[in-house]
Amino acid sequence: MRATVLVRPKPGILDPQGQAVESSLRHLGFAVSDARIGRLVELELETDDSAEARAQIERMCEQLLANPLIESYEIELRTDT
Amino acid sequence: MRATVLVRPKPGILDPQGQAVESSLRHLGFAVSDARIGRLVELELETDDSAEARAQIERMCEQLLANPLIESYEIELRTDT
Repeated sequence: MRATVLVRPKPGILDPQGQAVESSLRHLGFAVSDARIGRLVELELETDDSAEARAQIERMCEQLLANPLIESYEIELRTDT
Repeated sequence: MRATVLVRPKPGILDPQGQAVESSLRHLGFAVSDARIGRLVELELETDDSAEARAQIERMCEQLLANPLIESYEIELRTDT
């Protein structure tokens, strides 16, 4: 089963990378009022059970993929097997 | 208008960060057969026109947000204004 995990800085958390991108985009002439940078993790899991996959990914996020103090995550499962 | 840009390494392009994550997840005991890492860019644009927003973001991706040689990008617009 394939899964996509979107990891974003939580609202209110400083995002220096986003600020740099916003500033660069404005220097290039784009009318952008905010930019936030997160990560996209695409996983191929060996399980085919959605509930099991979601539970595993939540543990992966807590342990490795995200920093739960400052980042939120969103899990999208795709059953295209 | 808010937009989300998903930037992924193209298929076949080496992704050392993804390999490191895959290896770490396996060491933690997760049954993962592939992991790829990309970026998530969330933008607040000043335009409210979808076609104009999409055209602007395509130029941003070509110039700054992605490396078109090795990365593909996907644009999602949200008209929640």
